[in-house]
Amino acid sequence: MTESRPPVVSAVEETADRIASMEVRGAAAIADAAAAALAEQATADADSPAAFRAGMRSAARVLYETRPTAVSLPNSLRYVLRGVEGTTVAELRTASIDRAERFRSELERAQERLGRVGSNRLRDGDVVMTHCHSTDALACVKAAVGDGKSIEAIVKETRPRNQGHITARELRELDVPVTLIVDNAARRYLKDVDHVLVGADSIAADGSVINKIGTSGLAVNARERGVPVTVAAQTIKLHPDTMTGHAVEIEMRSETEVLTPEDRAEIVDDGDRELTVENPAFDITPPRHVDAIVTERGQFPPESIVVLMRELFGETIDEPWSA
Amino acid sequence: MTESRPPVVSAVEETADRIASMEVRGAAAIADAAAAALAEQATADADSPAAFRAGMRSAARVLYETRPTAVSLPNSLRYVLRGVEGTTVAELRTASIDRAERFRSELERAQERLGRVGSNRLRDGDVVMTHCHSTDALACVKAAVGDGKSIEAIVKETRPRNQGHITARELRELDVPVTLIVDNAARRYLKDVDHVLVGADSIAADGSVINKIGTSGLAVNARERGVPVTVAAQTIKLHPDTMTGHAVEIEMRSETEVLTPEDRAEIVDDGDRELTVENPAFDITPPRHVDAIVTERGQFPPESIVVLMRELFGETIDEPWSA
Amino acid sequence: MTESRPPVVSAVEETADRIASMEVRGAAAIADAAAAALAEQATADADSPAAFRAGMRSAARVLYETRPTAVSLPNSLRYVLRGVEGTTVAELRTASIDRAERFRSELERAQERLGRVGSNRLRDGDVVMTHCHSTDALACVKAAVGDGKSIEAIVKETRPRNQGHITARELRELDVPVTLIVDNAARRYLKDVDHVLVGADSIAADGSVINKIGTSGLAVNARERGVPVTVAAQTIKLHPDTMTGHAVEIEMRSETEVLTPEDRAEIVDDGDRELTVENPAFDITPPRHVDAIVTERGQFPPESIVVLMRELFGETIDEPWSA
Amino acid sequence: MTESRPPVVSAVEETADRIASMEVRGAAAIADAAAAALAEQATADADSPAAFRAGMRSAARVLYETRPTAVSLPNSLRYVLRGVEGTTVAELRTASIDRAERFRSELERAQERLGRVGSNRLRDGDVVMTHCHSTDALACVKAAVGDGKSIEAIVKETRPRNQGHITARELRELDVPVTLIVDNAARRYLKDVDHVLVGADSIAADGSVINKIGTSGLAVNARERGVPVTVAAQTIKLHPDTMTGHAVEIEMRSETEVLTPEDRAEIVDDGDRELTVENPAFDITPPRHVDAIVTERGQFPPESIVVLMRELFGETIDEPWSA
Amino acid sequence: MTESRPPVVSAVEETADRIASMEVRGAAAIADAAAAALAEQATADADSPAAFRAGMRSAARVLYETRPTAVSLPNSLRYVLRGVEGTTVAELRTASIDRAERFRSELERAQERLGRVGSNRLRDGDVVMTHCHSTDALACVKAAVGDGKSIEAIVKETRPRNQGHITARELRELDVPVTLIVDNAARRYLKDVDHVLVGADSIAADGSVINKIGTSGLAVNARERGVPVTVAAQTIKLHPDTMTGHAVEIEMRSETEVLTPEDRAEIVDDGDRELTVENPAFDITPPRHVDAIVTERGQFPPESIVVLMRELFGETIDEPWSA
Amino acid sequence: MTESRPPVVSAVEETADRIASMEVRGAAAIADAAAAALAEQATADADSPAAFRAGMRSAARVLYETRPTAVSLPNSLRYVLRGVEGTTVAELRTASIDRAERFRSELERAQERLGRVGSNRLRDGDVVMTHCHSTDALACVKAAVGDGKSIEAIVKETRPRNQGHITARELRELDVPVTLIVDNAARRYLKDVDHVLVGADSIAADGSVINKIGTSGLAVNARERGVPVTVAAQTIKLHPDTMTGHAVEIEMRSETEVLTPEDRAEIVDDGDRELTVENPAFDITPPRHVDAIVTERGQFPPESIVVLMRELFGETIDEPWSA
Repeated sequence: MTESRPPVVSAVEETADRIASMEVRGAAAIADAAAAALAEQATADADSPAAFRAGMRSAARVLYETRPTAVSLPNSLRYVLRGVEGTTVAELRTASIDRAERFRSELERAQERLGRVGSNRLRDGDVVMTHCHSTDALACVKAAVGDGKSIEAIVKETRPRNQGHITARELRELDVPVTLIVDNAARRYLKDVDHVLVGADSIAADGSVINKIGTSGLAVNARERGVPVTVAAQTIKLHPDTMTGHAVEIEMRSETEVLTPEDRAEIVDDGDRELTVENPAFDITPPRHVDAIVTERGQFPPESIVVLMRELFGETIDEPWSA
Repeated sequence: MTESRPPVVSAVEETADRIASMEVRGAAAIADAAAAALAEQATADADSPAAFRAGMRSAARVLYETRPTAVSLPNSLRYVLRGVEGTTVAELRTASIDRAERFRSELERAQERLGRVGSNRLRDGDVVMTHCHSTDALACVKAAVGDGKSIEAIVKETRPRNQGHITARELRELDVPVTLIVDNAARRYLKDVDHVLVGADSIAADGSVINKIGTSGLAVNARERGVPVTVAAQTIKLHPDTMTGHAVEIEMRSETEVLTPEDRAEIVDDGDRELTVENPAFDITPPRHVDAIVTERGQFPPESIVVLMRELFGETIDEPWSA
Repeated sequence: MTESRPPVVSAVEETADRIASMEVRGAAAIADAAAAALAEQATADADSPAAFRAGMRSAARVLYETRPTAVSLPNSLRYVLRGVEGTTVAELRTASIDRAERFRSELERAQERLGRVGSNRLRDGDVVMTHCHSTDALACVKAAVGDGKSIEAIVKETRPRNQGHITARELRELDVPVTLIVDNAARRYLKDVDHVLVGADSIAADGSVINKIGTSGLAVNARERGVPVTVAAQTIKLHPDTMTGHAVEIEMRSETEVLTPEDRAEIVDDGDRELTVENPAFDITPPRHVDAIVTERGQFPPESIVVLMRELFGETIDEPWSA
Repeated sequence: MTESRPPVVSAVEETADRIASMEVRGAAAIADAAAAALAEQATADADSPAAFRAGMRSAARVLYETRPTAVSLPNSLRYVLRGVEGTTVAELRTASIDRAERFRSELERAQERLGRVGSNRLRDGDVVMTHCHSTDALACVKAAVGDGKSIEAIVKETRPRNQGHITARELRELDVPVTLIVDNAARRYLKDVDHVLVGADSIAADGSVINKIGTSGLAVNARERGVPVTVAAQTIKLHPDTMTGHAVEIEMRSETEVLTPEDRAEIVDDGDRELTVENPAFDITPPRHVDAIVTERGQFPPESIVVLMRELFGETIDEPWSA
Repeated sequence: MTESRPPVVSAVEETADRIASMEVRGAAAIADAAAAALAEQATADADSPAAFRAGMRSAARVLYETRPTAVSLPNSLRYVLRGVEGTTVAELRTASIDRAERFRSELERAQERLGRVGSNRLRDGDVVMTHCHSTDALACVKAAVGDGKSIEAIVKETRPRNQGHITARELRELDVPVTLIVDNAARRYLKDVDHVLVGADSIAADGSVINKIGTSGLAVNARERGVPVTVAAQTIKLHPDTMTGHAVEIEMRSETEVLTPEDRAEIVDDGDRELTVENPAFDITPPRHVDAIVTERGQFPPESIVVLMRELFGETIDEPWSA
Repeated sequence: MTESRPPVVSAVEETADRIASMEVRGAAAIADAAAAALAEQATADADSPAAFRAGMRSAARVLYETRPTAVSLPNSLRYVLRGVEGTTVAELRTASIDRAERFRSELERAQERLGRVGSNRLRDGDVVMTHCHSTDALACVKAAVGDGKSIEAIVKETRPRNQGHITARELRELDVPVTLIVDNAARRYLKDVDHVLVGADSIAADGSVINKIGTSGLAVNARERGVPVTVAAQTIKLHPDTMTGHAVEIEMRSETEVLTPEDRAEIVDDGDRELTVENPAFDITPPRHVDAIVTERGQFPPESIVVLMRELFGETIDEPWSA
């Protein structure tokens, strides 16, 4: 832990800064930038294969530590570091760069591929219910519409931030008829719904889906109504830390998303802090309430997603950058 | 149906107008006014017992037709008409006035009595989760606090109209610590909750609870988490029409409660009507997701509330005012 | 038990014979005939009120023993015997005859009243799924159609006797669009169904519904799909013996309803009796899988039907005719 | 509350002492003694009907306060006080004594009647699983055996006090084959079981069954395995306080039932009090996990037992002895 | 897509014809014939490895297009094409032929191996319930009987085509005692059943089991009764298209399987087409109602069958014959 | 089967004796000894690779047959035999020894690694409920405490052998506050519990968990209360035989663990054998009631543990030592 880490190339430092400052944001963008930075690091001089590997690990560590809770970051790092074989520095270099390129090019095509898989689950005439806004989920609807299927949507507004409005707009741009409802109305409309279709913030190795607050309550109701729940999530959403039992930390957000100062003032006298507002960003849906996870690598029951994680990341007991 | 109805006294007409115009509103106020009007009608001249009864039925009909979906209105009418025995006009008059008075005086004490019953279900240290705003539910907490119990509350804001804010304020006035959450966060906090405690718009003979939209989804989640659900509802909320299978009609409310014009404009171009907003005011919770209904007459499993309805209203196959 | 029973009038004997020989059959016809026979018995001479009562009990016993498992028979007998008050033979006679008449006239109107209640549970545009053939269930659809509601039906053929064909024909006569399916296809079509609507052979005090074999499996699937189950049953189907815990005996019917001799010969060599065919006529649906029982006295959750039974029959620990 | 209570006859005082000192114990014995004491009180001189009633109420209060948590005590008191009508002291006296006598004579026959009802739920060849020791539950098996049915029993030992041993012995005396198991083995044997058959400490108005710790866990498993749960409980076990929402207080018993001092010493060093032992005597089974409650008045779904309570006790908002 | 496909050898054409004409039918026979045809194609001349591969893909395409919904056909093709490595035509030829042979020889032994696995799940004395006719399911019983276990069967007749009769006959030939029931009677007999044992038409990557109509309703009831459900299915039933989200299309069969013309005439007047008969051949059982899938490669929870599919078929985003 | 087995080295014989006599006991100790014995066998002379392999298989068979139901024994044998590649005796020898060493060294670290994974599932402040005594489960708590988390425990005593006392003692040594309860009290305390945390005797390929009797009943209740269930089990607990459908045999233990002779004498007269005591050591929890299995290789949903088994053991249709 206290070993002196080998220095990393400046491109790595710069990328790390841009991730840390949230100049680079979004799961896909972060993953892409990290892979590119590792490819840069691979071009650096190295005296020996061991030195090369040490440099790569060091770069991975620098990048990892910028936002340790961003699920796509360790995914990207692990993918590049894991696939590298070779006995000379040159071989390792080529392998590393190839690996980074392959990751980036797969990433580029992933959403469209995922959309095709998700579209196959939808039939002509289906009604989907959405929660929050997810480009992965929308990619499924887009592909289905592109295949000539007629799809309708019931869109939950998704308090507190009303991302359902964005979903509604984008679905309308696809000419999908939209019915907007408050989150409280979901159960009433579930009987008209063929699929609940949501994205994911991340997926855990125990098959749990971490997604926008309200997803788990919707999934429980969908199960009770006999409506299948499909989660659309690229594999960069699979959370490697969870393979070793780590829980995904749930971000608590600002009270002001829930309550304006005027609202607060109406409820309690100024200065009374005994009104607490809790505003968690995400919740956790257990796998028994989810029917399928759709990725660019095909669809999976949530209980088997850990196998895909092992295939992609290997066992993660010892993090490659934590030696 | 086409029979000419006997004329009714002007006090009945006036009350009918005030109910129709919603000058008189709220389940208890309507029930009280209707009973008072029937007492006025009972003072009118009548040639015979039959004429007296016809006049009373006529008055009931006039009142009933002002707001046929207001649950407490037929309750009040039935209660007064049903208990009247006698062989002379004088006897019938006295009986009717007594009956109306008794109804009104019971109504006055009902909420406080209900609160005592509900309080008994709460233990010192309990955490309740509320949905919407219900004076009946609050009466339970108030009585519990009055009994010296320490109660905490997790209050759902209850979109679209945020009646949770009112609940939060009134709980704070009782010095109950309040945590306010968005509706979507309910499942996450259910594990810290001892009781879900809600009111009711009306209760149906099949044991269903009609209440503010979002109640049924909350109840399904509470059952899945092992949290009991208590519904606080005075007997004027018991819906007699449902004894003969009638469904309670669900009011659809204005889109503007859900979406501001600005929000709509951001989602779709002006004039595009293909964005539908559905805004039902209530939903229906089946009895299997409710543990107890607390009334001023004691607590009941929802499956047996029909027995209380039969006791209060008799069989309702033939409405007293519809012959 | 070994007391010599008072003789009964010949009209009672004749009715008993006609019930025993199944000349009189069907729950309503048996109940009607039994009440009529008791009215005849009431016209017989009697030396004392005690003698009168003994004669009535004796007649009830003779009638009861013709078909002790016919649910409507004890219902009819109990109803007539229970309501009789009086201190002279003349009073008792009048009371008995009145009581019998009242039972018969209520019976005559019961199905139409039940239909009205059941109709109220159906909305315009609803799709119902039926099992077997039940005039009570059809009365609900008929009333709904009469009210101008558009109803569609998915009709299970109901092996082994295909009573679904009768249901299909009668629904077509009401101009209800019918889709006929094999029993195995029920779950697949449940997602398009708003109500499962069935009749009952009898209803037990623990809320169980005894009905044509296949009902319980359908109800379990309906619950899993979120589809409510309505049972239409006149109160003559309420089984008084079950109030004291008696189980309803399930009739085992002939193998030939299931398997033709040719079918059997193809399965096993002649004479091989090791192929057993079991053909129970009914099964038992527990109350937790039923949403409402619709009767001519209104609708009830199955868990509260026992209260209606107590109201109609009193406590049945000691059978009135078994003294 | 601070009114001076009229003095009561010495027989009441003596009975109160014997109940308080637990010389009289057991639900039936307490109920019987209390009714007898009220009959004695009724013989006391009274100047007026009002004075008579005040004396009776006073006696009820004295008796009630001896053991306010004994469920059968208020049952007995309410039963006697409620049924008393009359306009003179003499009439009231006779009515009170009659009422007390009737209560006592019904009590005497109740268990045998209950047994007959419970027996009817059992079929020849059935296997029952028991928990704890209940004379009501055993009365059902005894009646079934008396009816010539062959019954087998799987008996849970029922830690910590092993009352299952008593059940096993009494079942063996009825020649019922017994398999004794530890409580942990219950789920494994449920697949061979036709009925779970238990008694009750008390029954609440919301349909909950309060019974020996372990009952609720058994009932949850029985539901999951598809095995019906029958609770045998005389009506003196119905808990009137629960009609107004009161919870039944759960007795916490001595640690030494769970852990010998030697066991404790092996677990922790002497004097270490950080090992807590919790030993609740009872738990609460919600009605949805119980199929039927068998009483001497017939069988009831747990959700409708409140109706029997109302019939027996009236509404209990205002306790008759607390004015 | 519009590329001109290389010509294929005549043996491939002939096999394609025989599959298309349904001369070759049954999952195993089709798979075997397709592998044999690919082995023939491998013997054809080829100028280069690329040409060889193109010829193989072309043959696969020809075969695939004969019956694109036959699940075993793509399985066979994929298996042979996937395992072929080599740098010369000769190597590729040998590898292809070897691969085809290996597939065919494994196929030959698969059912017997599956039977051994399934037999291990059965204990001496078990009662199984079957639906439809499945040689895979019967292989399990046969192996169990061969191991000396005593097995009994409750056989559902399986309307509309009564394949249960075939199952009954074959079980009788194994000396297994058989009880035949109508499909409607399944729930009643489930309490005597240790295993529901069925085959599969195909298995989807989301763990769903596509099998004869009625399977899913049976599985829901088995879960509710606590009876485990075992599906016996060789790996040729695993449906590769479903890995990319494709739904398995459900064949709708002729009305005449359900209703004779005479039956129809009795229900409706001639020419009235408003009686619809729907006759789907299969339904879909979600994985949560299935306990294990038994294959020749061992047993799997349905949620992990996708992993076996990935092992056998690779990722199927790009079909090998669709380049 | 009747082939003459090659002789094995004396170290193998000795280890076999020590395992058979239970001198070596406990899953980890047996696995370790068996691997060490195979390493010894690998040092024996062999004329050819075939002879070497035959000797190894022979040794495996000798060891396997000592305790064919000990789950860790075949695990160990399979692990060593499977990984061995080579074309000369020398290569095979080195590979075998390496493989055995690797197995042993991984085994040594496994529990600590597992503990780290399990600890990650626990949050600061969590309350766990334990059943029986499991060093794997305790390793999770130990690691959590080591990470500075505050953990409390509710410990079931775990009749009949009270292994909960050992668990309580060891938790107290970790300074974890312990509440000891009887097994019957589990459901009552589940509402205060964040995790049920148990070990396993073995894990089956269908995802079932075989563990101390009482585990399955606890898991069913935990699911009903919404409490997640975590099973801690090293991979040596994965039962390879179950991959081919074999059931894990459940040991029936002595009556005297349940009933002292004095207890028996009190229940029945001497010599009466009609009191049966059944004392199964383990029960089977289906995967749908378990949330995660924690191993030294990470955590897995129970439905995907078969994939880890395939990775570790290969397909087990043909046992390596049974040729």
